[in-house]
Amino acid sequence: MTDLSNAAPPPLVPQMIAARSGRALRMARCETVRVINMHGSQVVDTWAFCADDPAEFMSMEHSRTYWMRANPVAGDILLTNLRRPIATLVADTSPGVHDTLIAACDKARYAQLAGDAGHANCVDNLQACLAQLGISAASVPAPLNLFMNVAIREGGRLEIRAPVCEPGDYVDLRAERDLIMVFSACPQDIVPVNGLHPRDVAIQVLGA
Amino acid sequence: MTDLSNAAPPPLVPQMIAARSGRALRMARCETVRVINMHGSQVVDTWAFCADDPAEFMSMEHSRTYWMRANPVAGDILLTNLRRPIATLVADTSPGVHDTLIAACDKARYAQLAGDAGHANCVDNLQACLAQLGISAASVPAPLNLFMNVAIREGGRLEIRAPVCEPGDYVDLRAERDLIMVFSACPQDIVPVNGLHPRDVAIQVLGA
Repeated sequence: MTDLSNAAPPPLVPQMIAARSGRALRMARCETVRVINMHGSQVVDTWAFCADDPAEFMSMEHSRTYWMRANPVAGDILLTNLRRPIATLVADTSPGVHDTLIAACDKARYAQLAGDAGHANCVDNLQACLAQLGISAASVPAPLNLFMNVAIREGGRLEIRAPVCEPGDYVDLRAERDLIMVFSACPQDIVPVNGLHPRDVAIQVLGA
Repeated sequence: MTDLSNAAPPPLVPQMIAARSGRALRMARCETVRVINMHGSQVVDTWAFCADDPAEFMSMEHSRTYWMRANPVAGDILLTNLRRPIATLVADTSPGVHDTLIAACDKARYAQLAGDAGHANCVDNLQACLAQLGISAASVPAPLNLFMNVAIREGGRLEIRAPVCEPGDYVDLRAERDLIMVFSACPQDIVPVNGLHPRDVAIQVLGA
Protein backbone atom coordinates (compact mmCIF):
# COMPACT_ATOMS: atom_id res chain seq x y z
CA MET A 1 0.00 0.00 0.00
CA THR A 2 1.45 3.33 -1.04
CA ASP A 3 1.63 6.11 1.51
CA LEU A 4 -0.05 9.09 -0.15
CA SER A 5 0.07 11.36 2.88
CA ASN A 6 2.88 13.41 1.37
CA ALA A 7 1.73 13.14 -2.23
CA ALA A 8 0.92 16.30 -4.07
CA PRO A 9 -2.78 16.81 -4.64
CA PRO A 10 -3.93 16.11 -8.18
CA PRO A 11 -3.41 19.12 -10.43
CA LEU A 12 -6.51 21.26 -10.55
CA VAL A 13 -7.75 21.65 -14.08
CA PRO A 14 -8.04 25.02 -15.77
CA GLN A 15 -11.52 26.45 -16.12
CA MET A 16 -12.41 28.28 -19.29
CA ILE A 17 -14.03 31.68 -19.22
CA ALA A 18 -15.70 32.08 -22.58
CA ALA A 19 -15.10 35.28 -24.54
CA ARG A 20 -17.35 38.13 -23.32
CA SER A 21 -18.40 36.30 -20.14
CA GLY A 22 -17.54 36.29 -16.44
CA ARG A 23 -16.83 33.87 -13.64
CA ALA A 24 -16.75 34.10 -9.86
CA LEU A 25 -14.44 32.07 -7.67
CA ARG A 26 -14.54 31.57 -3.91
CA MET A 27 -11.01 31.43 -2.56
CA ALA A 28 -9.71 30.59 0.88
CA ARG A 29 -6.86 32.62 2.34
CA CYS A 30 -3.50 31.50 0.87
CA GLU A 31 -5.04 29.88 -2.21
CA THR A 32 -3.64 31.10 -5.51
CA VAL A 33 -5.41 31.48 -8.84
CA ARG A 34 -3.62 31.62 -12.18
CA VAL A 35 -5.23 33.85 -14.80
CA ILE A 36 -4.09 32.67 -18.21
CA ASN A 37 -4.17 34.90 -21.28
CA MET A 38 -4.53 31.97 -23.67
CA HIS A 39 -4.51 34.06 -26.84
CA GLY A 40 -2.32 36.86 -25.51
CA SER A 41 -4.75 39.55 -26.61
CA GLN A 42 -7.42 39.45 -23.94
CA VAL A 43 -8.02 41.81 -21.02
CA VAL A 44 -9.49 40.36 -17.81
CA ASP A 45 -11.35 42.79 -15.56
CA THR A 46 -10.79 41.47 -12.03
CA TRP A 47 -12.48 42.25 -8.72
CA ALA A 48 -12.15 40.83 -5.22
CA PHE A 49 -14.59 41.10 -2.31
CA CYS A 50 -14.05 39.95 1.24
CA ALA A 51 -16.13 36.82 1.87
CA ASP A 52 -17.24 37.96 5.32
CA ASP A 53 -18.23 41.46 4.16
CA PRO A 54 -18.42 42.28 0.43
CA ALA A 55 -18.56 46.01 1.32
CA GLU A 56 -14.81 45.61 1.81
CA PHE A 57 -13.26 45.05 -1.61
CA MET A 58 -10.04 45.38 -3.61
CA SER A 59 -9.54 49.09 -4.28
CA MET A 60 -7.37 50.46 -7.04
CA GLU A 61 -6.96 53.92 -5.45
CA HIS A 62 -5.91 52.50 -2.11
CA SER A 63 -3.56 50.02 -3.78
CA ARG A 64 -1.94 52.73 -5.95
CA THR A 65 -1.38 54.86 -2.85
CA TYR A 66 0.34 51.91 -1.16
CA TRP A 67 2.50 51.04 -4.19
CA MET A 68 3.11 54.65 -5.25
CA ARG A 69 2.80 53.30 -8.75
CA ALA A 70 -0.06 53.39 -11.28
CA ASN A 71 0.15 49.64 -11.95
CA PRO A 72 1.11 46.56 -9.96
CA VAL A 73 4.23 44.45 -10.48
CA ALA A 74 4.98 40.95 -9.23
CA GLY A 75 5.24 40.97 -5.45
CA ASP A 76 2.78 43.83 -4.98
CA ILE A 77 0.02 43.49 -2.40
CA LEU A 78 -3.44 44.71 -3.35
CA LEU A 79 -5.34 46.55 -0.62
CA THR A 80 -9.00 46.88 0.19
CA ASN A 81 -10.91 50.14 0.59
CA LEU A 82 -10.01 49.77 4.31
CA ARG A 83 -6.29 49.48 3.35
CA ARG A 84 -5.99 45.83 4.36
CA PRO A 85 -4.24 43.22 2.19
CA ILE A 86 -6.71 41.23 0.10
CA ALA A 87 -4.49 39.64 -2.57
CA THR A 88 -0.89 39.51 -3.78
CA LEU A 89 0.29 39.45 -7.38
CA VAL A 90 2.76 36.66 -6.70
CA ALA A 91 3.85 35.92 -10.28
CA ASP A 92 3.54 37.49 -13.71
CA THR A 93 4.98 35.97 -16.88
CA SER A 94 3.51 38.75 -19.07
CA PRO A 95 5.41 41.99 -19.80
CA GLY A 96 3.63 43.39 -16.72
CA VAL A 97 1.38 45.82 -18.54
CA HIS A 98 -1.85 46.06 -16.55
CA ASP A 99 -4.26 48.92 -15.89
CA THR A 100 -5.87 50.39 -12.79
CA LEU A 101 -7.16 53.67 -14.27
CA ILE A 102 -10.03 52.76 -16.58
CA ALA A 103 -13.58 51.96 -15.46
CA ALA A 104 -15.16 48.62 -16.32
CA CYS A 105 -17.26 48.75 -19.49
CA ASP A 106 -21.00 48.88 -18.94
CA LYS A 107 -24.30 49.51 -20.75
CA ALA A 108 -23.70 53.28 -20.73
CA ARG A 109 -20.24 52.89 -22.29
CA TYR A 110 -21.58 50.96 -25.29
CA ALA A 111 -24.57 53.28 -25.60
CA GLN A 112 -22.11 56.18 -25.86
CA LEU A 113 -19.59 54.41 -28.12
CA ALA A 114 -21.98 52.71 -30.51
CA GLY A 115 -25.57 53.32 -29.52
CA ASP A 116 -25.70 49.71 -28.36
CA ALA A 117 -26.79 49.49 -24.74
CA GLY A 118 -27.44 45.76 -25.22
CA HIS A 119 -23.74 44.97 -25.80
CA ALA A 120 -22.20 42.40 -23.43
CA ASN A 121 -20.18 44.25 -20.79
CA CYS A 122 -17.98 43.67 -17.75
CA VAL A 123 -20.31 45.27 -15.20
CA ASP A 124 -23.22 43.03 -16.22
CA ASN A 125 -20.84 40.05 -16.03
CA LEU A 126 -19.76 41.08 -12.52
CA GLN A 127 -23.29 41.60 -11.30
CA ALA A 128 -24.52 38.31 -12.78
CA CYS A 129 -21.64 36.44 -11.10
CA LEU A 130 -22.33 38.07 -7.74
CA ALA A 131 -26.07 37.49 -8.04
CA GLN A 132 -25.43 33.76 -8.50
CA LEU A 133 -23.72 33.85 -5.09
CA GLY A 134 -26.53 35.88 -3.54
CA ILE A 135 -24.32 38.97 -3.24
CA SER A 136 -25.10 42.48 -4.42
CA ALA A 137 -22.32 45.06 -4.58
CA ALA A 138 -23.39 48.44 -3.23
CA SER A 139 -21.33 50.05 -5.97
CA VAL A 140 -19.04 48.69 -8.66
CA PRO A 141 -15.39 49.08 -7.62
CA ALA A 142 -12.80 50.12 -10.17
CA PRO A 143 -11.40 46.86 -11.57
CA LEU A 144 -7.85 45.58 -11.81
CA ASN A 145 -7.63 45.33 -15.58
CA LEU A 146 -5.19 42.47 -16.07
CA PHE A 147 -3.19 42.63 -19.33
CA MET A 148 -4.83 45.96 -20.31
CA ASN A 149 -2.43 48.26 -22.13
CA VAL A 150 -3.17 51.89 -21.30
CA ALA A 151 -0.15 54.04 -22.02
CA ILE A 152 0.27 57.12 -19.81
CA ARG A 153 1.74 59.79 -22.04
CA GLU A 154 3.04 63.34 -21.63
CA GLY A 155 0.59 65.49 -19.68
CA GLY A 156 -1.26 62.46 -18.32
CA ARG A 157 -2.80 61.62 -21.71
CA LEU A 158 -4.08 58.03 -21.82
CA GLU A 159 -3.94 55.80 -24.89
CA ILE A 160 -5.72 52.46 -25.10
CA ARG A 161 -3.70 49.94 -27.08
CA ALA A 162 -3.84 46.22 -27.74
CA PRO A 163 -2.29 43.96 -25.07
CA VAL A 164 1.40 43.13 -25.46
CA CYS A 165 1.20 39.58 -24.10
CA GLU A 166 2.17 36.27 -25.66
CA PRO A 167 -0.36 33.42 -25.75
CA GLY A 168 -0.13 31.57 -22.45
CA ASP A 169 1.15 34.49 -20.38
CA TYR A 170 -0.35 34.42 -16.91
CA VAL A 171 -0.51 36.15 -13.57
CA ASP A 172 -0.89 34.40 -10.21
CA LEU A 173 -2.99 36.08 -7.53
CA ARG A 174 -2.83 34.78 -3.97
CA ALA A 175 -5.76 35.42 -1.65
CA GLU A 176 -4.75 37.18 1.55
CA ARG A 177 -8.28 36.81 2.92
CA ASP A 178 -11.16 34.44 2.33
CA LEU A 179 -12.64 36.18 -0.66
CA ILE A 180 -14.71 36.10 -3.80
CA MET A 181 -12.80 36.93 -6.94
CA VAL A 182 -14.67 37.80 -10.12
CA PHE A 183 -13.15 37.77 -13.60
CA SER A 184 -14.66 39.15 -16.80
CA ALA A 185 -13.18 38.40 -20.21
CA CYS A 186 -13.78 41.94 -21.44
CA PRO A 187 -16.30 42.07 -24.33
CA GLN A 188 -14.93 45.36 -25.68
CA ASP A 189 -14.70 45.14 -29.50
CA ILE A 190 -15.09 48.81 -30.46
CA VAL A 191 -11.88 50.27 -29.03
CA PRO A 192 -8.78 48.07 -29.47
CA VAL A 193 -8.37 47.06 -25.82
CA ASN A 194 -8.66 43.37 -26.75
CA GLY A 195 -7.20 43.79 -30.21
CA LEU A 196 -10.84 44.14 -31.40
CA HIS A 197 -11.43 40.38 -30.99
CA PRO A 198 -12.65 39.27 -27.54
CA ARG A 199 -11.27 35.80 -26.71
CA ASP A 200 -11.55 33.06 -24.12
CA VAL A 201 -9.27 33.10 -21.10
CA ALA A 202 -8.67 30.47 -18.43
CA ILE A 203 -8.25 30.40 -14.68
CA GLN A 204 -6.64 27.64 -12.66
CA VAL A 205 -6.71 27.27 -8.90
CA LEU A 206 -3.23 26.29 -7.73
CA GLY A 207 -4.13 25.60 -4.13
CA ALA A 208 -2.43 26.99 -1.06
CA MET B 1 -36.40 105.29 -6.79
CA THR B 2 -33.72 103.28 -8.49
CA ASP B 3 -34.71 100.35 -10.69
CA LEU B 4 -32.80 97.37 -9.38
CA SER B 5 -34.44 94.77 -11.61
CA ASN B 6 -31.35 94.49 -13.79
CA ALA B 7 -28.87 94.99 -11.01
CA ALA B 8 -26.41 92.24 -10.33
CA PRO B 9 -27.16 90.30 -7.19
CA PRO B 10 -24.95 91.16 -4.26
CA PRO B 11 -21.67 89.28 -4.47
CA LEU B 12 -21.84 86.07 -2.51
CA VAL B 13 -19.22 86.06 0.16
CA PRO B 14 -16.50 83.43 0.36
CA GLN B 15 -16.87 80.82 3.03
CA MET B 16 -13.79 79.67 4.86
CA ILE B 17 -12.97 76.01 5.29
CA ALA B 18 -10.61 75.83 8.23
CA ALA B 19 -7.41 73.84 7.87
CA ARG B 20 -8.02 70.10 8.38
CA SER B 21 -11.81 70.38 8.15
CA GLY B 22 -14.56 69.81 5.62
CA ARG B 23 -17.68 71.47 4.29
CA ALA B 24 -20.70 70.31 2.29
CA LEU B 25 -22.55 72.50 -0.19
CA ARG B 26 -25.91 71.89 -1.81
CA MET B 27 -25.84 73.20 -5.37
CA ALA B 28 -28.58 73.58 -7.93
CA ARG B 29 -27.89 72.64 -11.55
CA CYS B 30 -25.95 75.42 -13.31
CA GLU B 31 -24.63 76.97 -10.11
CA THR B 32 -20.86 77.38 -9.95
CA VAL B 33 -18.60 77.16 -6.95
CA ARG B 34 -15.12 78.66 -6.82
CA VAL B 35 -12.55 76.73 -4.76
CA ILE B 36 -9.82 79.13 -3.73
CA ASN B 37 -6.35 77.97 -2.73
CA MET B 38 -5.74 80.96 -0.49
CA HIS B 39 -2.21 79.99 0.51
CA GLY B 40 -1.33 78.15 -2.69
CA SER B 41 -0.15 75.07 -0.83
CA GLN B 42 -3.37 73.32 0.09
CA VAL B 43 -5.00 70.28 -1.47
CA VAL B 44 -8.81 70.07 -1.44
CA ASP B 45 -10.32 66.58 -1.66
CA THR B 46 -13.60 67.05 -3.49
CA TRP B 47 -16.62 64.77 -3.93
CA ALA B 48 -20.02 65.25 -5.57
CA PHE B 49 -23.19 63.21 -5.03
CA CYS B 50 -26.45 63.53 -6.95
CA ALA B 51 -29.05 65.17 -4.72
CA ASP B 52 -31.82 62.81 -5.79
CA ASP B 53 -29.72 59.66 -5.30
CA PRO B 54 -26.35 59.83 -3.53
CA ALA B 55 -25.56 56.32 -4.82
CA GLU B 56 -24.78 58.15 -8.08
CA PHE B 57 -21.62 60.18 -7.54
CA MET B 58 -18.67 61.78 -9.29
CA SER B 59 -16.34 58.97 -10.34
CA MET B 60 -12.69 59.40 -11.14
CA GLU B 61 -12.37 56.19 -13.16
CA HIS B 62 -15.38 56.98 -15.32
CA SER B 63 -14.21 60.56 -15.80
CA ARG B 64 -10.68 59.48 -16.79
CA THR B 65 -12.14 57.05 -19.33
CA TYR B 66 -14.19 59.92 -20.82
CA TRP B 67 -11.28 62.38 -20.89
CA MET B 68 -8.63 59.79 -21.83
CA ARG B 69 -6.40 61.74 -19.48
CA ALA B 70 -5.29 61.09 -15.89
CA ASN B 71 -6.24 64.60 -14.77
CA PRO B 72 -8.88 67.17 -15.73
CA VAL B 73 -8.23 70.44 -17.52
CA ALA B 74 -10.49 73.49 -17.84
CA GLY B 75 -13.52 72.58 -19.92
CA ASP B 76 -13.58 68.94 -18.86
CA ILE B 77 -16.85 67.39 -17.76
CA LEU B 78 -16.79 65.11 -14.74
CA LEU B 79 -18.96 62.00 -14.98
CA THR B 80 -20.80 59.93 -12.44
CA ASN B 81 -20.43 56.20 -11.89
CA LEU B 82 -23.34 55.93 -14.37
CA ARG B 83 -21.33 58.01 -16.91
CA ARG B 84 -23.62 61.05 -16.70
CA PRO B 85 -22.31 64.62 -16.40
CA ILE B 86 -22.32 65.83 -12.80
CA ALA B 87 -19.96 68.85 -12.92
CA THR B 88 -17.74 70.82 -15.28
CA LEU B 89 -14.34 72.30 -14.47
CA VAL B 90 -15.21 75.60 -16.13
CA ALA B 91 -12.16 77.62 -15.08
CA ASP B 92 -8.75 77.03 -13.54
CA THR B 93 -6.25 79.80 -12.78
CA SER B 94 -3.79 77.33 -11.22
CA PRO B 95 -1.12 75.52 -13.26
CA GLY B 96 -3.71 72.76 -13.68
CA VAL B 97 -1.97 70.16 -11.53
CA HIS B 98 -4.67 68.05 -9.90
CA ASP B 99 -4.88 64.38 -8.97
CA THR B 100 -7.39 61.60 -9.54
CA LEU B 101 -5.23 58.60 -8.59
CA ILE B 102 -4.74 58.77 -4.82
CA ALA B 103 -7.29 57.66 -2.22
CA ALA B 104 -8.56 60.12 0.38
CA CYS B 105 -6.64 59.92 3.65
CA ASP B 106 -8.39 58.06 6.44
CA LYS B 107 -7.80 56.58 9.91
CA ALA B 108 -5.99 53.57 8.44
CA ARG B 109 -3.63 55.80 6.43
CA TYR B 110 -2.43 57.67 9.51
CA ALA B 111 -2.26 54.47 11.56
CA GLN B 112 0.09 53.07 8.89
CA LEU B 113 2.10 56.27 8.38
CA ALA B 114 2.50 57.35 11.96
CA GLY B 115 0.63 55.02 14.29
CA ASP B 116 -1.89 57.81 14.78
CA ALA B 117 -5.40 56.59 13.94
CA GLY B 118 -6.82 59.67 15.68
CA HIS B 119 -5.34 62.08 13.12
CA ALA B 120 -7.85 64.33 11.34
CA ASN B 121 -8.54 62.92 7.89
CA CYS B 122 -10.50 63.57 4.71
CA VAL B 123 -12.77 60.52 4.97
CA ASP B 124 -13.93 61.48 8.47
CA ASN B 125 -14.49 65.03 7.18
CA LEU B 126 -16.59 63.69 4.29
CA GLN B 127 -18.65 61.41 6.48
CA ALA B 128 -19.28 64.11 9.09
CA CYS B 129 -20.43 66.53 6.35
CA LEU B 130 -22.77 63.95 4.83
CA ALA B 131 -24.11 62.93 8.24
CA GLN B 132 -25.08 66.56 8.90
CA LEU B 133 -27.25 66.33 5.78
CA GLY B 134 -28.69 62.97 6.82
CA ILE B 135 -26.84 61.15 4.06
CA SER B 136 -24.64 58.08 4.36
CA ALA B 137 -22.41 57.08 1.46
CA ALA B 138 -22.48 53.33 0.80
CA SER B 139 -18.77 53.55 0.03
CA VAL B 140 -16.29 56.40 -0.19
CA PRO B 141 -15.68 57.34 -3.84
CA ALA B 142 -12.19 58.20 -5.01
CA PRO B 143 -11.91 62.00 -4.63
CA LEU B 144 -10.98 64.67 -7.12
CA ASN B 145 -7.86 65.97 -5.38
CA LEU B 146 -7.80 69.63 -6.41
CA PHE B 147 -4.32 71.17 -6.52
CA MET B 148 -2.68 67.85 -5.54
CA ASN B 149 0.67 67.36 -7.23
CA VAL B 150 1.27 63.68 -7.98
CA ALA B 151 3.86 63.29 -10.70
CA ILE B 152 3.49 60.23 -12.93
CA ARG B 153 7.01 59.11 -13.77
CA GLU B 154 8.63 56.49 -15.97
CA GLY B 155 7.06 53.08 -15.44
CA GLY B 156 3.98 54.57 -13.80
CA ARG B 157 5.88 55.51 -10.63
CA LEU B 158 3.99 58.11 -8.57
CA GLU B 159 5.64 60.89 -6.60
CA ILE B 160 3.75 63.07 -4.14
CA ARG B 161 5.05 66.64 -4.18
CA ALA B 162 3.96 69.98 -2.78
CA PRO B 163 1.33 71.90 -4.78
CA VAL B 164 2.63 74.29 -7.45
CA CYS B 165 -0.10 76.94 -7.01
CA GLU B 166 0.16 80.62 -6.19
CA PRO B 167 -1.89 82.02 -3.31
CA GLY B 168 -5.34 82.87 -4.66
CA ASP B 169 -5.35 80.36 -7.49
CA TYR B 170 -8.80 78.88 -7.94
CA VAL B 171 -10.91 76.44 -9.90
CA ASP B 172 -14.57 76.91 -10.78
CA LEU B 173 -16.83 73.86 -10.79
CA ARG B 174 -20.30 74.13 -12.34
CA ALA B 175 -22.99 71.73 -11.22
CA GLU B 176 -24.54 69.80 -14.10
CA ARG B 177 -27.11 68.25 -11.75
CA ASP B 178 -28.66 69.22 -8.46
CA LEU B 179 -25.96 67.87 -6.20
CA ILE B 180 -24.13 67.88 -2.92
CA MET B 181 -20.49 68.78 -3.17
CA VAL B 182 -18.14 68.07 -0.27
CA PHE B 183 -14.73 69.65 0.21
CA SER B 184 -12.03 68.65 2.66
CA ALA B 185 -8.99 70.82 3.33
CA CYS B 186 -6.67 67.81 3.50
CA PRO B 187 -5.11 67.37 6.98
CA GLN B 188 -2.10 65.46 5.65
CA ASP B 189 1.05 66.74 7.39
CA ILE B 190 3.27 63.63 7.22
CA VAL B 191 3.86 63.38 3.48
CA PRO B 192 4.40 66.72 1.69
CA VAL B 193 1.10 66.82 -0.18
CA ASN B 194 0.19 70.13 1.48
CA GLY B 195 3.77 71.29 1.86
CA LEU B 196 3.59 69.76 5.39
CA HIS B 197 1.43 72.66 6.64
CA PRO B 198 -2.33 72.20 6.26
CA ARG B 199 -4.01 75.56 5.59
CA ASP B 200 -7.45 77.15 5.27
CA VAL B 201 -9.10 77.31 1.89
CA ALA B 202 -12.24 79.15 0.75
CA ILE B 203 -15.22 78.39 -1.42
CA GLN B 204 -17.49 80.95 -3.03
CA VAL B 205 -20.80 80.26 -4.74
CA LEU B 206 -20.93 82.30 -7.95
CA GLY B 207 -24.55 81.57 -8.81
CA ALA B 208 -25.86 80.29 -12.10
